[in-house]
Amino acid sequence: MPVTSFVVGKRKIDIAGDGPSCVEELFYGRPEFIFHLASLSEEADFDFDRGYRVNVDGTKNMLDAIRAIPGYCPRFVFASSIAAPSQCSAAPQDSYDTQKAIAELLVSEYSRKGYVDGISIRLPTIVGCPDATYKAATSFFPSMIREPLSGHEAICPVPLFFRHTIASPKAAAGNLLHAANLTSQQLAMSRTMNMPGIAPAVHDIIEALGNIAGKSVAKLIRQERDISIWRTVSSWPQNIDATYALSLGFVPDTSIDAIIKYYIKDELKQKKHSLPTEVEKMHVEDDLKQKKCSLPTGVEKRHVEDDLKQKTYSIPTGFGKRQLSGAAA
Amino acid sequence: MPVTSFVVGKRKIDIAGDGPSCVEELFYGRPEFIFHLASLSEEADFDFDRGYRVNVDGTKNMLDAIRAIPGYCPRFVFASSIAAPSQCSAAPQDSYDTQKAIAELLVSEYSRKGYVDGISIRLPTIVGCPDATYKAATSFFPSMIREPLSGHEAICPVPLFFRHTIASPKAAAGNLLHAANLTSQQLAMSRTMNMPGIAPAVHDIIEALGNIAGKSVAKLIRQERDISIWRTVSSWPQNIDATYALSLGFVPDTSIDAIIKYYIKDELKQKKHSLPTEVEKMHVEDDLKQKKCSLPTGVEKRHVEDDLKQKTYSIPTGFGKRQLSGAAA
Repeated sequence: MPVTSFVVGKRKIDIAGDGPSCVEELFYGRPEFIFHLASLSEEADFDFDRGYRVNVDGTKNMLDAIRAIPGYCPRFVFASSIAAPSQCSAAPQDSYDTQKAIAELLVSEYSRKGYVDGISIRLPTIVGCPDATYKAATSFFPSMIREPLSGHEAICPVPLFFRHTIASPKAAAGNLLHAANLTSQQLAMSRTMNMPGIAPAVHDIIEALGNIAGKSVAKLIRQERDISIWRTVSSWPQNIDATYALSLGFVPDTSIDAIIKYYIKDELKQKKHSLPTEVEKMHVEDDLKQKKCSLPTGVEKRHVEDDLKQKTYSIPTGFGKRQLSGAAA
Repeated sequence: MPVTSFVVGKRKIDIAGDGPSCVEELFYGRPEFIFHLASLSEEADFDFDRGYRVNVDGTKNMLDAIRAIPGYCPRFVFASSIAAPSQCSAAPQDSYDTQKAIAELLVSEYSRKGYVDGISIRLPTIVGCPDATYKAATSFFPSMIREPLSGHEAICPVPLFFRHTIASPKAAAGNLLHAANLTSQQLAMSRTMNMPGIAPAVHDIIEALGNIAGKSVAKLIRQERDISIWRTVSSWPQNIDATYALSLGFVPDTSIDAIIKYYIKDELKQKKHSLPTEVEKMHVEDDLKQKKCSLPTGVEKRHVEDDLKQKTYSIPTGFGKRQLSGAAA
């Protein structure tokens, strides 16, 4: 049965324990679908050992625990990153991306052996997130939307022409669900793939913010070059080839305008954040009611509840938006 | 000081113990150069857990033991495989190649962090090996040279047009030494690279054997298709791009003829194997004295001795030809 809606429960487990037994209990109910979004992002570079324990050993613990259960081979959706090095010539830029690439290899290999039915989807940087806990090198990109819309200043450390591939939490969640529903046959060619995204330049974001929320909001983005961030992000791939994912039915956001409008509607309004007055005037919600933007299938149907008893699918590392954004760099 | 000759000692150590302390003693002498050829090949697919313990955890133990020594950052030459998956679209074909790819990522990442000065060279299938202990899917390729020259039949499980990228043990050893001598500056673009090789078809090998050792020797290669081997090897990359390695001065063998002649001279004669009479008549050694084939620099100067007291460089997993051939698939 395809996943179109599910209930999210919360359970705190250290996946980086000594061997697969530390995660065994997650699979008592034999969930059909597992979304593994783990986990440490920029911290993996600072705390090197912890990064490997959580991101690599933790993932392997999950896979080994599944492998140990006879006759059990669930769909395992792993949220990787478009910055994970996949070409000989691309040296990894940080520990997080290296660990994502290692985990992808584990997912592919365990799938080839028939231990799990895995797929690794390489998510772009997620923008339109409700909070500022995500600290990776790309965090300035989400902050350029989030902060001005809350009336705060955001720093842009790179030139205005810099483009970066992004996705909204909705598009990412929709694609995670889509990944869960693909048949094994559809994954015969590869179980690792770049997700489609849109790649606006910084000036596109400023323009869209100005059009939707007003010039005074757009002006809250301040230019302040940071050569170290620029060095890191300018080495990232500019043209993400998502042909394979597109052929399998994964979908990107429609535009930066759509991402900003959804952020205003879904995140700010629900959280009762105060919107700059000007934003209200633009009738963002009316625009949305006319459904000019297509939503990935299934996303609107999600029910996120805090009741473990209703648990249908195991979401070991959380499926809240914070974790989702943390899964991609 | 560049490595041009060194002494090989033997010490038996389980690199797959619990944590880096199991390999600490290898680094007491602070070797400047480490050649890591580990380790399990086809067995990694049959004994899945052991494969990961030796090939992945073992490599990480080595790197972590080095990292734990303050101010120590030796050149770490890792023998990888041209079959290691490096493209998104290339799914790993066996556990060995997956584990090679994971180890490559570790070597690159530890190097980026400054913990080790690593380089991963992806070796082609090694042919012209003295014994038959190597059991990987490509073993028929070396056996088509080795067995007929010892008067035994060899099975060719694939069509005559099948091409495969190969290297002699001499070329591989020369390139391992070359890898040890490159500066860190030269590795700035990438620390993982395909080694150059030559890619004869099966019919080229049969023809070369016939020309050098006589038709009766070449006829010892018997066609017997094996669809399972064919499936595995036909999915392997046919055109190995070694541009980067060539630009850094790595060198392939000159021809299949040269590989066969060296095998007859260096391996069979030294081992006092009996050569089919016809081979003697072809004056193979006279050909070689005229030096029509160039040897990779430094290879002829190698001294391989069994005295650990003279140990100059740490060769943790052995540097005998058996291990060398085992390092590439």
